[in-house]
Amino acid sequence: MSAPRVAAPGSGGGAAEPEPVRGRGLELELGSSTQTSHRLLAYSDALLSIIATVMILPVAHTKIHPDQKLGESVQQLLLAKIAVYLMTFLIVTVAWAAHVRLFQVIELIDDVLALLNLACMMIITFLPYTFSLMASFPEVPFGIFLFSVCAVIIGLIQAVIVVYGFYHPHLLNQQIQVSENQNFYKRHILKIILRGPLLCFLAAIFSFFFIPLSYVLLGLVIVFPHLTRFITWCKTKIVGQRDEEEEHRSLESFTFYLSEPLSKERVEAFSDGVYAIVATLLILDICEDNVPDPREVREKFHGSLLEALSEYGPNYLAYFGSFVTIGLLWFVHHSLFLYVTKATRLMGLLNILSLAFIGGLPLAYQLTSEFAEKSHNEIEAIQVSCVITFFASIFQFAIWTTALHERETLHPFARYGGKEHAFMFAKLALYPCVSLGAFFLTCLLSEFSTAIFHLMQIVIPFAFLALRIFVRISLTVIKSVMSLSGRKVVLLEEEEACLSPTETLS
Amino acid sequence: MSAPRVAAPGSGGGAAEPEPVRGRGLELELGSSTQTSHRLLAYSDALLSIIATVMILPVAHTKIHPDQKLGESVQQLLLAKIAVYLMTFLIVTVAWAAHVRLFQVIELIDDVLALLNLACMMIITFLPYTFSLMASFPEVPFGIFLFSVCAVIIGLIQAVIVVYGFYHPHLLNQQIQVSENQNFYKRHILKIILRGPLLCFLAAIFSFFFIPLSYVLLGLVIVFPHLTRFITWCKTKIVGQRDEEEEHRSLESFTFYLSEPLSKERVEAFSDGVYAIVATLLILDICEDNVPDPREVREKFHGSLLEALSEYGPNYLAYFGSFVTIGLLWFVHHSLFLYVTKATRLMGLLNILSLAFIGGLPLAYQLTSEFAEKSHNEIEAIQVSCVITFFASIFQFAIWTTALHERETLHPFARYGGKEHAFMFAKLALYPCVSLGAFFLTCLLSEFSTAIFHLMQIVIPFAFLALRIFVRISLTVIKSVMSLSGRKVVLLEEEEACLSPTETLS
Repeated sequence: MSAPRVAAPGSGGGAAEPEPVRGRGLELELGSSTQTSHRLLAYSDALLSIIATVMILPVAHTKIHPDQKLGESVQQLLLAKIAVYLMTFLIVTVAWAAHVRLFQVIELIDDVLALLNLACMMIITFLPYTFSLMASFPEVPFGIFLFSVCAVIIGLIQAVIVVYGFYHPHLLNQQIQVSENQNFYKRHILKIILRGPLLCFLAAIFSFFFIPLSYVLLGLVIVFPHLTRFITWCKTKIVGQRDEEEEHRSLESFTFYLSEPLSKERVEAFSDGVYAIVATLLILDICEDNVPDPREVREKFHGSLLEALSEYGPNYLAYFGSFVTIGLLWFVHHSLFLYVTKATRLMGLLNILSLAFIGGLPLAYQLTSEFAEKSHNEIEAIQVSCVITFFASIFQFAIWTTALHERETLHPFARYGGKEHAFMFAKLALYPCVSLGAFFLTCLLSEFSTAIFHLMQIVIPFAFLALRIFVRISLTVIKSVMSLSGRKVVLLEEEEACLSPTETLS
Repeated sequence: MSAPRVAAPGSGGGAAEPEPVRGRGLELELGSSTQTSHRLLAYSDALLSIIATVMILPVAHTKIHPDQKLGESVQQLLLAKIAVYLMTFLIVTVAWAAHVRLFQVIELIDDVLALLNLACMMIITFLPYTFSLMASFPEVPFGIFLFSVCAVIIGLIQAVIVVYGFYHPHLLNQQIQVSENQNFYKRHILKIILRGPLLCFLAAIFSFFFIPLSYVLLGLVIVFPHLTRFITWCKTKIVGQRDEEEEHRSLESFTFYLSEPLSKERVEAFSDGVYAIVATLLILDICEDNVPDPREVREKFHGSLLEALSEYGPNYLAYFGSFVTIGLLWFVHHSLFLYVTKATRLMGLLNILSLAFIGGLPLAYQLTSEFAEKSHNEIEAIQVSCVITFFASIFQFAIWTTALHERETLHPFARYGGKEHAFMFAKLALYPCVSLGAFFLTCLLSEFSTAIFHLMQIVIPFAFLALRIFVRISLTVIKSVMSLSGRKVVLLEEEEACLSPTETLS
């Protein structure tokens, strides 16, 4: 959870001062040019989230003639571009996760580290481009070579960062700092960081001899962290409890890189970046393409700007539709992460999957608006929108269920029972239910599909506003039903009363 | 200054919990569905920074034929688009500043406020488009009407937020909460918030009768806050000390909206957003436009991808050039704001001006690369890049000088004297000096202009790395020179020694 914002404007100067980190004095922090890494990481998160979503633009800008059925060739082109988008998203998030881990080991930065990190960012932002080259020319070694070389450079820079960090131990995580076997940690972390680049290096070499092997090697890089975790998990399940002790013993050394949860703050920052850039993707296009030409307005519309703009009506609708949907999904995400106390690896993965679908939303809405009037693909476009919305929201729901089942991942208030739990459940369930409902309704009443879709867009924001009232009513109903059958609810009610004393006041 | 990041991964669960805000228990915060506004504001900042910089895209995408001299018509078109960009930037930052003020009054949020804020954001993100319509059709009332209506809606939503906040006083700023005349505050804040929309409303009405008056009214909205401040300042200067007491009396009520510094955290977040989106603007284009067509590669380049890509060489150069420059300017900004303890209104304005120039950098670099090989505008393009870099960095320098002259705006370490001061000075002075130097060099040695420009790009990152060593050497030189003339430096040296005990160790 984020720290409280600087509160009283009256005491601006005092409150804005940096708080001492881990018990060291402020003097030391500033005087020795050592800085907290907060803003550097926020900036990195912003860059990475933009880069992760950028490959949706080529998909969105694929021109489809409205009269044309979504033909085979267009479909294939679209599918290829969507695959590139999803793969890029995955690769960038892998790089992001590695970056998170790295800066959980190195907690303070100085100027050299800041500059090294910027260099690393520069190469990472170039990755999507090399990847799309690779996708366009799967047979050409140079595409794979370029991609691999970038990955190797990123790995090397990160290795330099680690070596620099261990050379200046006051920058490191407190636990490593006090540990006696720093050298062991250093070698261990370097090994993990350089594992991926080594595979990429081999891929770069093999790209000139035997391309399929290169692809296998590159694929390994992405699945490797999940694979090792999966194998460990399987081993524990099969061999049973016996291993747990051994695992516990080795945990002490692995804790910083493999099994620890991702920093919740950075998961939030990265998600915020993705939501923000995706929400504004359509306005980027609108600002550029939908300003009518003055001459055309004079000649074609007799000087009436209103008439000229009404041509673009569907585009505006698409913008507002996607902004509202993404805004509300952000709202759900925000509410959810208020209760989440730490983000495990699985929750991080689910979050990334949810974000990947959210990246597709503007595209879906654009399709909807383009086909809204005069096409044969109206229903398909609307159904695609519903499906994407469904998956984006169901993965959010999955984060919640995962958090409920793991230990210490949720705030006690949001656990089973109690009003807040019910309310959170309702918030998370709203979008999956509505999008699924809309999907099946359009199947049944295909001639009203557009009307159903627009109705859904208009109703949902109000549904969110009324949700609290609705949940309270249903809880009262359940309570009164339950009170006939037993006295189990008394406990729930008491808990509620003790949790929200102001609720009744306001 | 940002709060310290969640530190020890080992204690993830505990450290990630939200800290109690202003002495209230965590229970109350979560139980009553009241939340800290941190993440909502971060998300708003991200949205607003993207929107502020979005109008640079139409400028960057203006197609100029390389053989064509920057003719009159192209120049005029470019100038018009640049004017639109700058005005949009200014308008969005005015909206942003109002948003900052608003959420300095309302410090905690609940679901209703979050949704209202999202609605407000949606309209604000639509502003740039209505503004560019207005710029394209200055004579048509509908453009002005649309813009004004958006502004009015934004004002009304903000008014609803204020009314809602005062209806639930536990969401408000502590100082207002304990104050006795809450109603006075409410009316005062509403008056300030609705002043702009009222002017816009009048502008919307007059747009159908007398367009010039509409423009005057809209202009008033932007300059109004600065104007009132300027008038107060003049009055104080002319009438003198006598008024100070009166001002002090009225300060108690005005403190929340007019004279208080902007939240430093939000200035940083907004700047980060702008830097991040601007740094990646060129890769957006590269990813979309610079993936060669497989058929073309086969036919034109005999299947050699490398040859096909070498055509795009200048684009890559432009990307890396702009990324490095923006990254380093971010680095300077980051270093500067480590020392800044609060951001006054003037510093905020200077920061926004610096950001506005930074938004133009990718465009300038693109021009440079396009003209690098075969054009008549090579020198002009390079000089434009130098000028933009110069202004972006000189405004950063101005923030520093302003901070030095105001009270309590800088951390004591960075004040006059001491090594950190000299180092900060060197960091801030590097870009203005180099860009100015490059500008005059290209004037003198016009045939080597491209070489000079590329040399500058390569040298600067290393200059930043070597800066600390350089400053230390110059300080030693100055010290030894000074020690011949007096003993004034002893004090400086002592201060230095007491400030950085680790510096000598590491």
